[in-house]
Amino acid sequence: MKKSAAEPLVPRRIAKVKSAARQPSPDERYDANIDHILRAAAAVFAEKSFGLASIRDIAAHAHISFPRIYYYLRNKEELLYLISRRAFEELLRRADEAARGAPDAAARLRKFIAGHLEYHMDNLAEMKVLVREADSLSGRYSADIARLKRDYSRLCRRIIEQFAEESGHTLDRERSRILTSLLFGSMNWFYTWYEPSRDYEQRSRIMDEVFRMVAGSIAEH
Amino acid sequence: MKKSAAEPLVPRRIAKVKSAARQPSPDERYDANIDHILRAAAAVFAEKSFGLASIRDIAAHAHISFPRIYYYLRNKEELLYLISRRAFEELLRRADEAARGAPDAAARLRKFIAGHLEYHMDNLAEMKVLVREADSLSGRYSADIARLKRDYSRLCRRIIEQFAEESGHTLDRERSRILTSLLFGSMNWFYTWYEPSRDYEQRSRIMDEVFRMVAGSIAEH
Repeated sequence: MKKSAAEPLVPRRIAKVKSAARQPSPDERYDANIDHILRAAAAVFAEKSFGLASIRDIAAHAHISFPRIYYYLRNKEELLYLISRRAFEELLRRADEAARGAPDAAARLRKFIAGHLEYHMDNLAEMKVLVREADSLSGRYSADIARLKRDYSRLCRRIIEQFAEESGHTLDRERSRILTSLLFGSMNWFYTWYEPSRDYEQRSRIMDEVFRMVAGSIAEH
Repeated sequence: MKKSAAEPLVPRRIAKVKSAARQPSPDERYDANIDHILRAAAAVFAEKSFGLASIRDIAAHAHISFPRIYYYLRNKEELLYLISRRAFEELLRRADEAARGAPDAAARLRKFIAGHLEYHMDNLAEMKVLVREADSLSGRYSADIARLKRDYSRLCRRIIEQFAEESGHTLDRERSRILTSLLFGSMNWFYTWYEPSRDYEQRSRIMDEVFRMVAGSIAEH
């Protein structure tokens, strides 16, 4: 986002932080403002739907003037794209960490599930938007998000296949595809029933239950 | 819908069908037209979202004149309400049948899953609308659908509890609630990945897999 053509040798952000700890650099302020706008946009899309929300609603929710918000983005679709891209990049980062940093496939699967559900719990508006507005992007935006989604889903499927193998089962292609889709379903439905005051305490039980559904299904074969 | 205050002793529809097999009665025609409009509305809501769809779009999709469509309904929200109510009434009817007509709880759970997924396969637009527009109703409409949903979910939960008991496990309240929600998630996500040309042949494998996820999770305890 908004980078000067010639990259400085020392990233500007770090240099600035060192020289003046209190004063955020213009880039930092820009990033913080984008973050702030994306959070506001996700809240408004989650409440009103992407179709009915207007840039004016989002500017009001973010306490930014209507003309000023256009300094940060071109249109409403770009907002939905950025919300989706950030979400999938973060989910992929966690999935990648899960795929690398665990001793066996069972632990990898548990970490994958925990990463997805923890992201979900901390970003309920974003997840609701991702699930409900999956078809609302078009063109390059849509293609770009579809690619991230495919990568994410493939990573999950590979973990499931490895887990099955580790526990002495072989899943054919169809079965690992179906199981992956069902697993995402059980997790992506979460925002519809998760109530922090009741379920936050239950979060490890919920994650265990999701893991047991996959593990149990493979074992039942 | 649109019933005379005093019910005739012989339901009008049957009487008419007997006397003139070729000529549908005004009531039959009314019901068929409502069906037709609801199908069109579900297709338009699924494509455009409830918020962006207009009565004009729906009339055009149903090949009915714009003024004439108001003979059948008051406003757009009533359409969404009727789509949702019909869907849940049909799902409840199937679930009820599953709860009664099977020799044991395992068969009941299988029948419940099959009823839900078969409905889903035959009514992809309706299911997409139900999932995405769950918050779009207000007032009495919203309360009415919430009640049907609660009944449906309760029925499913009871079947899961009976199934667990039958296989020698006891689920505490929290666990049966969590498992029920996860099961609905795995099934309600279906419209996002179901491709009839590829998955229709796989439907019994898909249903088996969903059953195994629940059964496996309970057995893994």
